[in-house]
Amino acid sequence: MPNTKLALISGGGALPVEIARYLKQTGRPYTVIRIDGLSDAELNDHPGHTLGLGDFPRLFEILATEQCKAVTMCGYVQRPDFDTMQKDQALQSIQSAGRGGDDSLLRQVAKVIASQGYHIEGAHEANPDLLIGCGLQAGPDPSPEAMEDAQEAMRVAAAIGALDIGQAVVVAGRITLGVEAQEGTQALLGRIHTLNPALRGTLANRKGVLAKLAKPIQDLRLDMPTIGVQTVEDAAAAGLCGIVAKAQALLIVNKPAVYARAAEMGVFIYGHDYH
Amino acid sequence: MPNTKLALISGGGALPVEIARYLKQTGRPYTVIRIDGLSDAELNDHPGHTLGLGDFPRLFEILATEQCKAVTMCGYVQRPDFDTMQKDQALQSIQSAGRGGDDSLLRQVAKVIASQGYHIEGAHEANPDLLIGCGLQAGPDPSPEAMEDAQEAMRVAAAIGALDIGQAVVVAGRITLGVEAQEGTQALLGRIHTLNPALRGTLANRKGVLAKLAKPIQDLRLDMPTIGVQTVEDAAAAGLCGIVAKAQALLIVNKPAVYARAAEMGVFIYGHDYH
Repeated sequence: MPNTKLALISGGGALPVEIARYLKQTGRPYTVIRIDGLSDAELNDHPGHTLGLGDFPRLFEILATEQCKAVTMCGYVQRPDFDTMQKDQALQSIQSAGRGGDDSLLRQVAKVIASQGYHIEGAHEANPDLLIGCGLQAGPDPSPEAMEDAQEAMRVAAAIGALDIGQAVVVAGRITLGVEAQEGTQALLGRIHTLNPALRGTLANRKGVLAKLAKPIQDLRLDMPTIGVQTVEDAAAAGLCGIVAKAQALLIVNKPAVYARAAEMGVFIYGHDYH
Repeated sequence: MPNTKLALISGGGALPVEIARYLKQTGRPYTVIRIDGLSDAELNDHPGHTLGLGDFPRLFEILATEQCKAVTMCGYVQRPDFDTMQKDQALQSIQSAGRGGDDSLLRQVAKVIASQGYHIEGAHEANPDLLIGCGLQAGPDPSPEAMEDAQEAMRVAAAIGALDIGQAVVVAGRITLGVEAQEGTQALLGRIHTLNPALRGTLANRKGVLAKLAKPIQDLRLDMPTIGVQTVEDAAAAGLCGIVAKAQALLIVNKPAVYARAAEMGVFIYGHDYH
């Protein structure tokens, strides 16, 4: 619904900033809802409001006053410490979902917002420029060996996702070097250089691929796999050849910078037609 | 075949030492084949020979001279750098299997030895005292929550193993916190404390379980999951309640010390009748 007014609930990081810029450039009506202490300072220059994490009464007041019809939630939010928060009914139902992990927490927040009649819109809907395309996007042409690793990495990532474990894996020489669970992609990439040198690549002699793929349980409107410049640098430092994701199912924060850095560091970025 | 003469091919670590002691105590005829630069110094006090990693001509000479019928391979061996080794035919066939990872490398070595008429015996057959039993082995009684995590950890470990990824996982509050691939169990446990405190336990307030389970592709005679005192200490430092494994399918190196340390640190060790 590109012409309805959008409320952009903004956690930390550059993703909300890129969406706000896009909304401003394309002339879509919007308001930014900054989460206190989390949102990037640049968002203060956009029309909006600042509120505390979990302050649902205030959130619904703003959504009504601003006459928003659609809501996008994005950016980094640390799992809240419920013990220190003042709890209304909405927050209590969210807390009770917390046991199932961050995914179910986020889904519960979306459910509460949707139950008030708001349309939940994904970051990729609010700013389609963020999505990865199909085929080679940046960096050198993958070798046949790298494409084999990419295929295997996508297969393992799909299996890991189906187990609700995580969304990233590293495969080199068709061996799974590492699997992401709760530690995140940066920590996964950061430990590759500690592995047996016979199994992995180096900055000078690359080997292996990072795959990022959403878990089936993930709602892509809430939490799509994301990479940025840091991911490219970490992948290069891990000795990898490239990064692969499902086409149209990966957000790339600051895409021009990511693609430039990928070309510079010799890391390919590839949108796979995996299914 | 407990009365046939056994050749104990000994890599690094305490496991070969415990087997050699057991063979000596029980009076079974044996010879230790020490791998140069790897085997524990205590093995020098046992009857045996020392040879270089990958020296198959010498190995078969010794096996024939000593009239061994059975061979056990155990202990830590670093993946060899084939480029620097003098290659005979046996070693060449082993190198060609190397692409499939450490498991297939080890299986290929066993195949070469078995092809000469020797019976491959597992460490747990050479010394059955090393095996974990069924039910609670050491430490405090698991809580119902911990048993739920143990069950889930075994389920995830089985799935990870079926994908040929690894043999260890950590589950807490039914969320998979970490999965072992090529980095090993110590690195897996070592990163748990870096995770979001809301998801994990602490030394004072334990939560979660480590499961170790062989991959279906693993030959338990060659490479059974193993824990030692360090594993118990690492599990405690990771804030875990306990360690679970399939009953009769985990080797415990220095079992009395492991069980004493588990009791002391409040980490349960449990043999699960998983199937």
